[in-house]
Amino acid sequence: MDSCVIPLRHGGLSLVQTTDFFYPLVEDPYMMGRIACANVLSDLYAMGITECDNMLMLLSVSQKMNEKERDQVMPLMMKGFRDAAEEAGTSVTGGQTVVNPWIIVGGVASVVCQPNDFIMPDSAVPGDVLVLTKPLGTQVAVNAHQWLDIPEKWNKIKLVISREEVEQAYQEAMLNMATLNRTAAALMHKFNAHAATDVTGFGIIGHARNLAQQQKNDVAFVIHNLPIISKMAAIVKAGGNLFGLLQGTSSETSGGLLICLPREQAARFCAEMKSSRVGLSGAMGHDGGAGDGQQAWIIGIVEKGNRCARIIDKPRIIEVPYRGSVVSAQEGSNNNASPPEVQLT
Amino acid sequence: MDSCVIPLRHGGLSLVQTTDFFYPLVEDPYMMGRIACANVLSDLYAMGITECDNMLMLLSVSQKMNEKERDQVMPLMMKGFRDAAEEAGTSVTGGQTVVNPWIIVGGVASVVCQPNDFIMPDSAVPGDVLVLTKPLGTQVAVNAHQWLDIPEKWNKIKLVISREEVEQAYQEAMLNMATLNRTAAALMHKFNAHAATDVTGFGIIGHARNLAQQQKNDVAFVIHNLPIISKMAAIVKAGGNLFGLLQGTSSETSGGLLICLPREQAARFCAEMKSSRVGLSGAMGHDGGAGDGQQAWIIGIVEKGNRCARIIDKPRIIEVPYRGSVVSAQEGSNNNASPPEVQLT
Repeated sequence: MDSCVIPLRHGGLSLVQTTDFFYPLVEDPYMMGRIACANVLSDLYAMGITECDNMLMLLSVSQKMNEKERDQVMPLMMKGFRDAAEEAGTSVTGGQTVVNPWIIVGGVASVVCQPNDFIMPDSAVPGDVLVLTKPLGTQVAVNAHQWLDIPEKWNKIKLVISREEVEQAYQEAMLNMATLNRTAAALMHKFNAHAATDVTGFGIIGHARNLAQQQKNDVAFVIHNLPIISKMAAIVKAGGNLFGLLQGTSSETSGGLLICLPREQAARFCAEMKSSRVGLSGAMGHDGGAGDGQQAWIIGIVEKGNRCARIIDKPRIIEVPYRGSVVSAQEGSNNNASPPEVQLT
Repeated sequence: MDSCVIPLRHGGLSLVQTTDFFYPLVEDPYMMGRIACANVLSDLYAMGITECDNMLMLLSVSQKMNEKERDQVMPLMMKGFRDAAEEAGTSVTGGQTVVNPWIIVGGVASVVCQPNDFIMPDSAVPGDVLVLTKPLGTQVAVNAHQWLDIPEKWNKIKLVISREEVEQAYQEAMLNMATLNRTAAALMHKFNAHAATDVTGFGIIGHARNLAQQQKNDVAFVIHNLPIISKMAAIVKAGGNLFGLLQGTSSETSGGLLICLPREQAARFCAEMKSSRVGLSGAMGHDGGAGDGQQAWIIGIVEKGNRCARIIDKPRIIEVPYRGSVVSAQEGSNNNASPPEVQLT
């Protein structure tokens, strides 16, 4: 499970907690703070928990930074973390900062829940479909952005992507990583989700396997579609199958939720992700207009099986356009106007 | 406050949380794990909280260690942490491990409390006395132990302490750092403590000042006695006032609780700390026989004042003997058979 669930001594309540910390992977400290916060909370959201009672922030300041750098970078990182927490309707109370050779940013999210507040990730049944709520390819986008300044790396991929597109893909990846999975968590209850996890360091296939192993029923997950940030598939092909992106092993940071939904609910789940505000308390409830819609894709099916997961040969690659660019958004509208169909047996 | 207290949406309950992480300061990885756990829990104990619902362990493995070193060191550190958690009647569920240039060990302690479970540290009144539940001098003991191998350092202190005594003081410091402040937390309720904090990185005077500033009443803390691990005062004098130990500024790791108690209760508090098992659930209730007694000392008074704290000129140094040595224990019995008296105005 993505979070630990501790039964409490008080009337059926449980303490649900999760922690995560890591090293900055993007250059913008404010965005890094937001991403770190979204990533910590994502473990709660994967259990359908939409509220968080408290967050602790864990920071280490790099000893290699001079005082001026620290004074510029750390407050921005903390502000990003706090802003994302506020968007999540929670606040950061407490934490710890130490000095370390590397910058570290992370946190702890805790919530006290009633039994109906969370969905145990173990009830997938054959016939369910798999939905993914963010595109893949964050690792590729972040690395490609670094390669702009490394000629031997850049030369391998420059035939398939322009510098502008790399910049746009990087911005798109940052936006996605900083997006909370909170809407998805709320919709998991509305559409009767059977199980979910969040996609992070082990890639889509690693997390699909972990989720499959936790199921009570004899099920297997089969992934047919890979929604990927536009042009990232081309980059990994040009570079010689980089990171195993097309095999589902490329790490993601603060990725989407992978959710098992009843087949008849999945299309509506995706439509509501895209279209609408959902009834959440906190900042999101006020800000989340129609413009905040997130995409979600039906990417596979649950069939009878041995608690394993696989990607079919030649999965369909869904090119997910960059929202920052009008051209890309138009290009992408063909691919993404409605939840893409999936070969359901 | 040492912990954050978050009101919950469920019937008067509060979530109390604290986190701490740091770098190893002793050579024994098992003891380091125990110390780290005791140090995290200490923030709860300082609020009179005796139970903990969950702990998360935060670890970073040093990238400079080879695989064999990692396989030897990290499991011992984790075992020490888990054993201390078990002694505290809680367990470690969840956590995160990363690779980093330095080893880091720490954790998060969380508990859901009813209002009577914790004591807000803000109610000291003039006439209270200050009690300390572990001796000072851990930083000096740990450093002196390292100086055994550094001739230019060792030469400065070898006239006042033997190598054997340094070893004993180091063992004593480790024992103290690894001791849970849980008994003290339980006795805070029994003897009606008005406020408390735990003594760590800012030294006794730093934490006394922090506690004084949080008080609702116009009080000041005056410290008359400094209980210090035997010979550590001599070392700091020989070395030229090292670490500011005698001024109360020397860092402590996993130090004792500094507690404001009604004057008529303090002696009995110290006697019960030393003598008896207390009614705790969990492992301690079963194991905690008379032999587990910890010392506590009346070290000062609360008077009317401006929310500040000070140590008197020429405080009385209480030499706290090494328990590992029979000789030392006899020597010490003069000093420590009963709670030392304090000049109460």
